[in-house]
Amino acid sequence: MRPQVLIIGCGFGGLEAARALRTAEVDVTVIDKTNHHLFQPLLYQVATAGLSAPSIAAPIRHLFRRQRNVTTLMGEVVALDAAAQTVALKDGATLRWDHLIVAAGATHSYFGRDDWAPHAPGLKTLDDAFEIRRRVLLAFEMAEREDDPVKRAALLQFVVVGGGPTGVELAGTFAEIARHTLPGEFRRIDPRQARVLLVEGSPRVLQAMPESLSERAREQLAALGVEVKLGARVTNIDAEGLDITTAAGPERLQSRCVVWAAGVAASPLGRALADATGCTLDRAGRVVVEPDLSLQGHPNIQVVGDLAAAQSHAPGKESRPVPGVSPGAKQMGRWAATNIKRRLSGQATLPFRYADYGNLATIGRNSAVVDLGTPAGQLRFSGYPAWLFWLFAHVYFLIGYRNRFVVLLDWAWAYWTYDRGARVVTQKR
Amino acid sequence: MRPQVLIIGCGFGGLEAARALRTAEVDVTVIDKTNHHLFQPLLYQVATAGLSAPSIAAPIRHLFRRQRNVTTLMGEVVALDAAAQTVALKDGATLRWDHLIVAAGATHSYFGRDDWAPHAPGLKTLDDAFEIRRRVLLAFEMAEREDDPVKRAALLQFVVVGGGPTGVELAGTFAEIARHTLPGEFRRIDPRQARVLLVEGSPRVLQAMPESLSERAREQLAALGVEVKLGARVTNIDAEGLDITTAAGPERLQSRCVVWAAGVAASPLGRALADATGCTLDRAGRVVVEPDLSLQGHPNIQVVGDLAAAQSHAPGKESRPVPGVSPGAKQMGRWAATNIKRRLSGQATLPFRYADYGNLATIGRNSAVVDLGTPAGQLRFSGYPAWLFWLFAHVYFLIGYRNRFVVLLDWAWAYWTYDRGARVVTQKR
Repeated sequence: MRPQVLIIGCGFGGLEAARALRTAEVDVTVIDKTNHHLFQPLLYQVATAGLSAPSIAAPIRHLFRRQRNVTTLMGEVVALDAAAQTVALKDGATLRWDHLIVAAGATHSYFGRDDWAPHAPGLKTLDDAFEIRRRVLLAFEMAEREDDPVKRAALLQFVVVGGGPTGVELAGTFAEIARHTLPGEFRRIDPRQARVLLVEGSPRVLQAMPESLSERAREQLAALGVEVKLGARVTNIDAEGLDITTAAGPERLQSRCVVWAAGVAASPLGRALADATGCTLDRAGRVVVEPDLSLQGHPNIQVVGDLAAAQSHAPGKESRPVPGVSPGAKQMGRWAATNIKRRLSGQATLPFRYADYGNLATIGRNSAVVDLGTPAGQLRFSGYPAWLFWLFAHVYFLIGYRNRFVVLLDWAWAYWTYDRGARVVTQKR
Repeated sequence: MRPQVLIIGCGFGGLEAARALRTAEVDVTVIDKTNHHLFQPLLYQVATAGLSAPSIAAPIRHLFRRQRNVTTLMGEVVALDAAAQTVALKDGATLRWDHLIVAAGATHSYFGRDDWAPHAPGLKTLDDAFEIRRRVLLAFEMAEREDDPVKRAALLQFVVVGGGPTGVELAGTFAEIARHTLPGEFRRIDPRQARVLLVEGSPRVLQAMPESLSERAREQLAALGVEVKLGARVTNIDAEGLDITTAAGPERLQSRCVVWAAGVAASPLGRALADATGCTLDRAGRVVVEPDLSLQGHPNIQVVGDLAAAQSHAPGKESRPVPGVSPGAKQMGRWAATNIKRRLSGQATLPFRYADYGNLATIGRNSAVVDLGTPAGQLRFSGYPAWLFWLFAHVYFLIGYRNRFVVLLDWAWAYWTYDRGARVVTQKR
């Protein structure tokens, strides 16, 4: 019997790990809670009705249909046994493994205030995206039917908490919907009077970017009609809005549509791994891994992607943390596969080295910021050229040719008409 | 103030009525429970993962954006007052009208056995379609993880109750998924071993069709791999399957995926109308209307579409019931608008006359039946030419050019690759 490799989670890390084992003499099992691989960088487009869900989600077993050494299972891992080399699934089943790659990713964290969750959904899954789409579109529908001007203003106030890439994308697109997509379709309200606020605790948006690009992003957000509140701490969120504190003192923001893009926490599987192996978790619940991505004392368990607190080890340079972006997850996935192949052939594993090609973030129509590492130094640009670069980079990396084509088509249509084709409200919950 | 026309429901009937009032000197309000007009003839494609929801649903207010005399509202009408000329909404609001068009459509009926609903979802809304898609795809996923051959066979048995157009389309497409889309993607099960059953109480499928075409449809279903059980009465449905009775006696069918395409009942608004006006309801709860589609004693209330028990009154011919198909609803909607315009200009209203262009139903890949009325007599054909005819007729009538194009593209892709692009499971309920 060939060595059994179990991969938990089929995001970017898990998918790349399984693909990199294509030619290895192993049996690979990929298990995921859902039936689809999600192209998360475009999830905000589903939440803002620009794309339909199938455009950015591909059935996992379809992606592996020609890779005969992969078996795809849908299920949820809840516990691990490192000595017996098994995992336990939620429905009671057990799976055995010789090599384990844990790529379970991250979820959103409300910093201990889980009671905020119903009032401020986050954006990690398709269901999250549908919920946000529903809230945004229904807010305009309810405003059209509201006679009280105070209540109407509250319905037309949208607040995004968190100025990272997701928060910036959402706020920019909300403003675009209000200013360009919906005007002309309402008879009693003017959608352009909607107010979109972006609330960020630190002094700038897009903290992973150089300061100059953060400032460009803030300017582009303002040009799109987003009010950016920096240095603003959220103290409470309820069904009617939220309370924030800034240098100017406390402030109340009425809103029926608050979106949470602030906190990220590692998957609860990190805790299960710690229980099973005694490994260390960092403050965000991520698993502290060895240089080769394995767990101390457990060379046959590796952790990749957002669940791993990993370091990049370039020869002759100080090691530095791997950022929580999709290229990081993909590279770790491939590295873990390589290490398994090396161990099977009796070679030593290698410390992970992250190839940093730069960073990019979109803000809205014609607006983005790009920070690329080139041999000649950092290349930084923003605005329309950055937006075009972002667009083609994302379509290029989309899984599956059909998806790429449909997404390009949807975008071309949306760009010329300002229409957003997926403005459908479902899930009456 | 101009006369106020209120249209309840924006299916085919309500949409056409509002459009036909484009040039009338009236203010039109269209109210619907959802935010979208649904192209119901293709809903089964969403349920079977062939199309994404936005491809067949268009935001109602987007459709009316250039028709300035239409105001779109999202809300649910629960009661009517014929004397005060108002309707009451679920949230307590009231709307006044001078002319009322009720186009609230139909829902599915379990013939008094509402306890069957959770075990056998019907197909009327997008949420219904997502639920069916979820159940079908999850059945294959669970089968891949099931070791017990008896349980696995039950998971791979799909039952559609009702041999009308929807039941035939669903059964044919389920068989296509099992035989063509999924094989090669599973490692433990062979999806081709899935069994698809179509259970119909009467002696033939597609009862609205001539007998010869019903027989063609049955043959094409068999060729696609569907087992058709005719003259089979459902006596019970539970979480594990259903009980039927045929001439051969009672039979138990194990299934975790039963779909209900058997009974149609008028919208509960029919009952509300009867309470408000004393109008008569037929056995299916439909409102019996006057020849001009109005209610007896209430010339300013008209009922159109599936909610109306209407007759077609061709001069010199016996009046006959209007079938519950989309051309019927559309024609009634336009007729009601014309009658309002005639009344406003002091003319008498006209009795409704249905133009019957024939009937068509698709069964699956390359399979359909068509029955057209031509000046030279009935034109009947089936198989590939009928399927092509069905395809272009449906794409032609799809609302919105973008939708037509995307749907054609999706179909072309699906046709050549046997892939179904929308195989995404969401809504973990």
